[in-house]
Amino acid sequence: MKTIESRSNPLYKQLFKWQSSAGRRDEPILLEGVHLCEAFLALGRQPQYALFDQTRITEPHLAGLIENLSEEVCCLLPAGLLANLSNVDTGQGVLFVVRPAVATLPTHLNANMLWLDRVQDPGNVGTLLRTAAAAGITRVLASTGTASLWSPKVLRSGQGVHFGMHLHEHIDLLAVARTLVVPLIVTTLSEANDLFEVELPVQAAWVFGHEGQGVSQSLIDLAALRIRIDHAQAVDSLNVTAAAAICLFEQRRQHR
Amino acid sequence: MKTIESRSNPLYKQLFKWQSSAGRRDEPILLEGVHLCEAFLALGRQPQYALFDQTRITEPHLAGLIENLSEEVCCLLPAGLLANLSNVDTGQGVLFVVRPAVATLPTHLNANMLWLDRVQDPGNVGTLLRTAAAAGITRVLASTGTASLWSPKVLRSGQGVHFGMHLHEHIDLLAVARTLVVPLIVTTLSEANDLFEVELPVQAAWVFGHEGQGVSQSLIDLAALRIRIDHAQAVDSLNVTAAAAICLFEQRRQHR
Repeated sequence: MKTIESRSNPLYKQLFKWQSSAGRRDEPILLEGVHLCEAFLALGRQPQYALFDQTRITEPHLAGLIENLSEEVCCLLPAGLLANLSNVDTGQGVLFVVRPAVATLPTHLNANMLWLDRVQDPGNVGTLLRTAAAAGITRVLASTGTASLWSPKVLRSGQGVHFGMHLHEHIDLLAVARTLVVPLIVTTLSEANDLFEVELPVQAAWVFGHEGQGVSQSLIDLAALRIRIDHAQAVDSLNVTAAAAICLFEQRRQHR
Repeated sequence: MKTIESRSNPLYKQLFKWQSSAGRRDEPILLEGVHLCEAFLALGRQPQYALFDQTRITEPHLAGLIENLSEEVCCLLPAGLLANLSNVDTGQGVLFVVRPAVATLPTHLNANMLWLDRVQDPGNVGTLLRTAAAAGITRVLASTGTASLWSPKVLRSGQGVHFGMHLHEHIDLLAVARTLVVPLIVTTLSEANDLFEVELPVQAAWVFGHEGQGVSQSLIDLAALRIRIDHAQAVDSLNVTAAAAICLFEQRRQHR
């Protein structure tokens, strides 16, 4: 196993750069915590580096990870140096450095999909990915203006689903919508059908939008189906993650 | 209108104490931002104090609030002093000081209810309240160990629903469950019925639990109905807010 003993180690300097550019395109990303690292390994992949707090490697969770890693990717660090690479207050003694899977957008999009139109909050975006994966969706298209899908907070709230999905960022949703072979469904409050009174298609591009402004009017105009979720008057609207959960699982209910 | 000009103003000192004890029982709380303040006023209530950034009161949103306030509760402050009372980076120039409504737990609980069993994350708790309100629920019971319902983050993600609900904190859910007249429903992964194959009761106490550990075994043992949400194998579980949205709106779908 490699070891890093000081800040001046060239690999450490490189790691620190990657940590600072978290979520930027084509840069390696740092996975925090045992659960995310396990999820990554469970897909049969190996990280570029697996960084461990050298004082904790006998802890069962960490030892379990090490068993499933090639020796050449493992690297031991003093606790303080590892903590400097971390975004959480109490780290679990491990960070993986991985390359985000680069997915190429197929010319024919004919699967059930999640489309994110300027969804801002990283926690919401991660929860949306997790909910979509739970509903059986494996492809996500995100517009420019959506929180970076590979940022630490999105990874954290995604709980490891990233590595089993095809994720496309900085997509011109309007351009893609014009060539779409499955129906485009938007959630909106005006001139919309009641979710529970519609026969939903088996496959669709489900668009969920900005937390305050909702889905862009240009996408609403192109939609094959406008959906609203009937709710009590006590609220103006549902949180975007709640709305997506209700829609995607109603579709699942109708077609299982 | 009152004015506060320095940190040494006695009212300012008091406000600062309340800000620091945010969410503690029986203390006034500070509402941040135009939307929450509007939601509070919309219920016909008046705050104890309405604090405004003295340089911004002609902005339309703030002027709109002032129109609906008694003059004696309004108070103008320099921007810096107001910012010191705020939990957000870019304030909207207004804070309301209000007393949380103290709800007394009725002896007979026969409405549809949300029960929170050690739900930790304030963002999740706020979203759960908002989703429950959207589903028509007005009563929430929270165990000790659940994030404080009146903390700034819960208020923010609740988006103003707090003021129209009966919220009960630090409740011994197990004790209340033993005297319950409506069915207790828990979401759990083992020995549970498929949500979409069950006839749900019109009224129930819906229990959602700790993000990692789920609902306490003692509550599961008392439940009239155990529910699981059938999902794709790509995830271990759903986020608690997604699970609640799916369950509460499936009940709404069945009974509207």
